[in-house]
Amino acid sequence: MPILNKDMTLCISLAARPSNIGTRFHNYLYGELGLNFIYKAFTTTDLPAAIGGIRALGIRGCSVSMPFKEDVIPLVDRMDLSASAIESVNTIVNDDGVLTAYNTDYLAVASLLQQHRVPAASSVMLRGSGGMAKAVAAALRDNGFADVTIVARNEQAGRSLAGLYGFGWRPDPGEGRADLLINVTPLGMAGPDEDALAYSTEAVAAAQTVFDVVAFPAETPLIRAARAAGKNVITGAEVITLQAAEQFVLYTGVRPTPEQVAAAGEFSRA
Amino acid sequence: MPILNKDMTLCISLAARPSNIGTRFHNYLYGELGLNFIYKAFTTTDLPAAIGGIRALGIRGCSVSMPFKEDVIPLVDRMDLSASAIESVNTIVNDDGVLTAYNTDYLAVASLLQQHRVPAASSVMLRGSGGMAKAVAAALRDNGFADVTIVARNEQAGRSLAGLYGFGWRPDPGEGRADLLINVTPLGMAGPDEDALAYSTEAVAAAQTVFDVVAFPAETPLIRAARAAGKNVITGAEVITLQAAEQFVLYTGVRPTPEQVAAAGEFSRA
Repeated sequence: MPILNKDMTLCISLAARPSNIGTRFHNYLYGELGLNFIYKAFTTTDLPAAIGGIRALGIRGCSVSMPFKEDVIPLVDRMDLSASAIESVNTIVNDDGVLTAYNTDYLAVASLLQQHRVPAASSVMLRGSGGMAKAVAAALRDNGFADVTIVARNEQAGRSLAGLYGFGWRPDPGEGRADLLINVTPLGMAGPDEDALAYSTEAVAAAQTVFDVVAFPAETPLIRAARAAGKNVITGAEVITLQAAEQFVLYTGVRPTPEQVAAAGEFSRA
Repeated sequence: MPILNKDMTLCISLAARPSNIGTRFHNYLYGELGLNFIYKAFTTTDLPAAIGGIRALGIRGCSVSMPFKEDVIPLVDRMDLSASAIESVNTIVNDDGVLTAYNTDYLAVASLLQQHRVPAASSVMLRGSGGMAKAVAAALRDNGFADVTIVARNEQAGRSLAGLYGFGWRPDPGEGRADLLINVTPLGMAGPDEDALAYSTEAVAAAQTVFDVVAFPAETPLIRAARAAGKNVITGAEVITLQAAEQFVLYTGVRPTPEQVAAAGEFSRA
């Protein structure tokens, strides 16, 4: 770390319960790339005043986490398509007092589907119906995926999400098969559901690609099963790292190399 | 510098033209004392929103410089006596959303008069009539100095300041003599007036203590003349360092040693 100085550009995050990941990811890359920036996580109980403070202090960027992703919408000046597509914001960029909102989760999911060469003609099961499931569904729709089934025990939430994008709905995977299996539920996440599999081993065997948005642990039971079966795998760690990298580009105007992004991702989780 | 983390406490400054001094002073001491704090200078064109942001983001402290020292008064919740005595704020402390305003220039001047054992019975000439002259005049009055003459070419400003504290006024030092000579004008400051002497060598010879609030250069012509004449000397660098040290104590609750303060002061000006 260089000696802090008055000219440093500050980027922040706002979350009910801040984690250290963003702070470590961004500061690591600032150091690697020699940028005069600092990044620090914050929480707030007064979102409008916090956003007003970002404007008034010239804070360059703000990562937005739960529970502020929708509440910030009326407080910004412009919505990028990535945020308006899902009415959810995870990134604010401040250009001389004009605040533009983005959603880099959406951007990261779209980018990963391309990087991993998942054909748009694939049949898809998408398990989950929350905010992140919406980002994934929108990224699928906007990248040409049409044969998508939302899998959600909550019928109202599942049908609502499916209806938004013209997809189908079913309450559980059952005997269902699909080329691309996506999990956006806490199943397999460290905690009470850490041993749960979002999809059966038979469904994994029948799939070509398995995408688990759960990032902790880095290797969920679903990812382990998919790797063992020789499938194309996309992990939650990739989503977190890539969405942070897209934030980094929006804040700094500098695109780090894939190796630098990977190193920052590892550092951020260490 | 440690790796930045989410739990760091942020302190900031607000000034029209931020300098690096506060940022270097505070961050140096955070490092020396192993405190999980960071400090960064800001400017703003929207003071109410900036102060609102301090509250909403839980920014712990804010140093206030020109031209905001009076404009922040209606924006804080409480005025410490140090600030209300001169209706001027240079420090805001945020206790869980409650903002208390202080003036550590006033505190530093009072402390330096004591440290340098200047008797309250001394006759005093105080040259200047701006905000800092007010802080010095109030510190003199509140520490028992009664025989004080304000020296100011601007009659209205000079008489007004003198009237506030029951002091006398004269337009220039002339043949005046006093035990304590204080300069709070830009005379002797690096720039167009850098060769000017606020008091004649005869006045210096007749004085016991010479106090020059000008901090750049560290040794003004007046301080040089006073040292050469073997006088008790108080410098602007001492004021800047001590007022920053008082801010440090208010923000962190930790009092650095005089040696640590001196080292931070030197580092901040390097």
